[in-house]
Amino acid sequence: MQTTENLSIFALGGINEIGKNMYVIQYADDIVIIDCGGKFPDESLLGIDLIIPDISYLEENKAKIRALVVTHGHEDHIGGIPYFLRKLNVPIYATAFTLGLIELKLDEHKLKRDTKLIQIDSKTEIEFGKIKTSFFKTNHSIPDCLGIVLHTPEGNVVHTGDFKFDLTPMNNQYSDIHKMAEIGNKGVLVLLSESTNAERPGLTPSERMVEDHMLEAFTKASGKIFVSTFASNVNRVQQVVEAAMKTNRKLALLGRSMVNIVSVAIERGYLTIPDGMLMEAQEIDKLSSEKVAILCTGSQGEPNAALARLATGNYRDAAIYPGDTVILAASPIPGNERNVSSIIDNLFQLEAKVIYGSGSTTGMHVSGHGYQEDLKLMLTLMKPTYFIPIHGEYRMLHHHRLLAESVGVEKGNTFIIQNGDVVDVQNKVARKTRKIPAGDTYIDGMGVGDVGEIVLRDRKQLSEDGMLVMVITINKVDRKLISGPDIITRGFVYARNADDLLKEVNKRVKKTVEELQAEDTRQWNIMKQNIKKSVGQYLFAQTRRRPMILPIIIEI
Amino acid sequence: MQTTENLSIFALGGINEIGKNMYVIQYADDIVIIDCGGKFPDESLLGIDLIIPDISYLEENKAKIRALVVTHGHEDHIGGIPYFLRKLNVPIYATAFTLGLIELKLDEHKLKRDTKLIQIDSKTEIEFGKIKTSFFKTNHSIPDCLGIVLHTPEGNVVHTGDFKFDLTPMNNQYSDIHKMAEIGNKGVLVLLSESTNAERPGLTPSERMVEDHMLEAFTKASGKIFVSTFASNVNRVQQVVEAAMKTNRKLALLGRSMVNIVSVAIERGYLTIPDGMLMEAQEIDKLSSEKVAILCTGSQGEPNAALARLATGNYRDAAIYPGDTVILAASPIPGNERNVSSIIDNLFQLEAKVIYGSGSTTGMHVSGHGYQEDLKLMLTLMKPTYFIPIHGEYRMLHHHRLLAESVGVEKGNTFIIQNGDVVDVQNKVARKTRKIPAGDTYIDGMGVGDVGEIVLRDRKQLSEDGMLVMVITINKVDRKLISGPDIITRGFVYARNADDLLKEVNKRVKKTVEELQAEDTRQWNIMKQNIKKSVGQYLFAQTRRRPMILPIIIEI
Repeated sequence: MQTTENLSIFALGGINEIGKNMYVIQYADDIVIIDCGGKFPDESLLGIDLIIPDISYLEENKAKIRALVVTHGHEDHIGGIPYFLRKLNVPIYATAFTLGLIELKLDEHKLKRDTKLIQIDSKTEIEFGKIKTSFFKTNHSIPDCLGIVLHTPEGNVVHTGDFKFDLTPMNNQYSDIHKMAEIGNKGVLVLLSESTNAERPGLTPSERMVEDHMLEAFTKASGKIFVSTFASNVNRVQQVVEAAMKTNRKLALLGRSMVNIVSVAIERGYLTIPDGMLMEAQEIDKLSSEKVAILCTGSQGEPNAALARLATGNYRDAAIYPGDTVILAASPIPGNERNVSSIIDNLFQLEAKVIYGSGSTTGMHVSGHGYQEDLKLMLTLMKPTYFIPIHGEYRMLHHHRLLAESVGVEKGNTFIIQNGDVVDVQNKVARKTRKIPAGDTYIDGMGVGDVGEIVLRDRKQLSEDGMLVMVITINKVDRKLISGPDIITRGFVYARNADDLLKEVNKRVKKTVEELQAEDTRQWNIMKQNIKKSVGQYLFAQTRRRPMILPIIIEI
Repeated sequence: MQTTENLSIFALGGINEIGKNMYVIQYADDIVIIDCGGKFPDESLLGIDLIIPDISYLEENKAKIRALVVTHGHEDHIGGIPYFLRKLNVPIYATAFTLGLIELKLDEHKLKRDTKLIQIDSKTEIEFGKIKTSFFKTNHSIPDCLGIVLHTPEGNVVHTGDFKFDLTPMNNQYSDIHKMAEIGNKGVLVLLSESTNAERPGLTPSERMVEDHMLEAFTKASGKIFVSTFASNVNRVQQVVEAAMKTNRKLALLGRSMVNIVSVAIERGYLTIPDGMLMEAQEIDKLSSEKVAILCTGSQGEPNAALARLATGNYRDAAIYPGDTVILAASPIPGNERNVSSIIDNLFQLEAKVIYGSGSTTGMHVSGHGYQEDLKLMLTLMKPTYFIPIHGEYRMLHHHRLLAESVGVEKGNTFIIQNGDVVDVQNKVARKTRKIPAGDTYIDGMGVGDVGEIVLRDRKQLSEDGMLVMVITINKVDRKLISGPDIITRGFVYARNADDLLKEVNKRVKKTVEELQAEDTRQWNIMKQNIKKSVGQYLFAQTRRRPMILPIIIEI
């Protein structure tokens, strides 16, 4: 008998990439979605603002979707939610802090709140149809993170979320290590575990490592102190608060996300700032420098964030003076190194003291993602029969597989998947056999998915060599040229350098029109092709450029 | 009495950047140019192929130019030469290996050899007018490097070139440390020293460090071995040759620059490869895997170089099989990390063993630029009165100044300059008082300097949001619309998504034309402005995009 009582596991995003995490567990007619992230495009995706997962499979199966469960509040796990909700109205389950960040996001997008947002914690147990779901606490560079256990008739599936094992965490962000052991003891059929730091040997340092270094920097500093970090790294923020407190500095917050996220963190009890310690940005200059600490956004070099503007002297409410200290308490994400370096250059030009570089050098940053020993500890606790490394580029997944095998996962039982590859489990046997649609959906301005390969290819050509438009007006009776060619160029070459070039282009267009006129044809497409060819060859020979050539023929 | 007997020192490139090095020493009416480099553009310079220094000062003073002296053969020191020579016919002085690379470059550019290329070595002494010039050997990641001493009536100026102190170099590439001490003893008025690694504590490891690691990897490997490195790093290439020799592997070279540069190195005696060891790429598959080693280009992730094509299975003469070993014996230059990572992912997908990561982890790469202790040793040997840190971004120059002060250069005697800032020395007193023109000249295809801010701004707009061209034909007598608007879009949005959008655009254009027609005006510019405004506002409101809008009015 053919049965649909099948457990299926797949990713719609997060595999072979860092970003747009979205994983799906389906048992029979019940679907649970885990996370809905966004990803920032690299420079090859001209004009694209954000990438989100292709959710066409979910749209086709929307009646089966029981929940979107969100493991934590980072952009690569919640950034796609506003777009997701426009297509699918699914209840969202997350912890208090994560929900706070999701609500901020929905407000920014001015989305109506007809979506159910359901607060859960690590003790919650819910049934999503036949998928009984429970949770465990993990530690990461944002508070209130969850791992998820999906109990299905076929067996238990565990999704770790992002994690490290920090045995001395700030703010009581302890991992549920005993609960994890218990889950492992009861039997895990499939483990999905994050792979970000699978290339790095050792154990991730504790967030506490930052404590002494931060205090030392605060103690040594004479002028104002600026600390730039991710606003969502609330435990790091807490350490800045404490260093400021111990050195009698008041604290200002610069940057919209810093102000918003800190206020969510305070409201919901994840951050403690003593009364009277916070001050408005406008008060900074009223206090003497050694009484001031400032937390600001922009640690990734974002050109419009507070730090970049401070570094060029373009921030309205605050300025960096010679002798002030600037601490970069975050590592640049690959791709952001140049922007961060240029900010550091600007800060030195302002004669600031700058504390920057890798966390192991400065002590101002530790990773939130487990290194190899953390990953091995998770694998050891969970003892999965099958393993799917997730959340990483291929080389990370590859190394994570080796780690799994080193702690006893059987060879052949690790599935390195692509987004869209489905792992089906039936009678406790897992197989990777089929694919569902998965890919990138581009967000450009308000457009979702209306920009694709052709538009991007045109943008690329325009960006590299610009364009020439040539308008020709032709008599519809005798096909003689009435006026033109009128030639306009943009992004190609300075007009003043192009006089001779454009004269020859003009001549060639006229000649092409005359040739076509001699033949008795009204095939404007042929005329356009011939113009493109003749002008294109000439311009390439002269300039080694291939601008877009757009002949426009007006018949009158 | 006003005198022109003045010593002037300035940079036309190389300051606040890594790339396009060009330094100028002028005494009275004699000019010596040091290096003529190129720089690769970052992704913001759309379509630009290369950046070279603005040499307008040199063009205006061409009668005074006595020589272009080139310290070594890296792109950031020779890449501008083909463009420089089209404007200025100046004799070029360099060592044998450097000249070999310059000749390769002139051949590539099909430049006639009417330029004098004069071979020098570290013992050469020449008089360039009143500037007596001598040299000293330095060690760097390319053979045959020179430092330069310019003896002027005002005092001695020393330019280090790029260097580290490697006390156990490969191929006898010893620094002239005794000569440097002697130069210092005789008195150095101004030292210009490179700053690339001024942020890194300690002493650069010796190139020899690679030796054992390379041999170990060769000994362990079972399949073919691919090593990717800069072809110009001849000493690294030598180590690969030796490891291959010891493990009985023949060697193939993949990539045009690898083949060309290795042949220059062999011809001129900088590289020794035993007879019969080199083989053609076509022979690779005829030998059994464990008999084959391959040196290939592409260590920076260049998409068209050998390594990237091997990693995607698109190289005609060779393929990577499961179990083959690939060694990345170079560090990614900032900005290239993503491309390199994506190649590593592809290599793992081919089931290769990949040795990658920082040199300190793999032992397969050491820097060619001196760390802080190397820089301090140079400063100590030279004991300069004045110091100008060169060859680096601002933070590197800043740290280099601190290093100089720590070994005794007087505070206030270090000049951190910009490209174009002139340091004038008269009666042994140095002052930074004036500026000459300096900046970036963009190379785009065959164009030199014909692309500037306006063209780049247009390319940026086109690249992000595309464009709309709308052609309107108007009766020149009654100003009535004859035809149009004909609307064409590129890079904006899929045509099939844009029907409604373009209908409304059409309506707005017509309305604008009618409004202007009502007024008795022939001011087409106003019409164009109004069309741009009306259409632009509408499109932004609908899409949050700002495509370039190009109204073209044809009067008939």
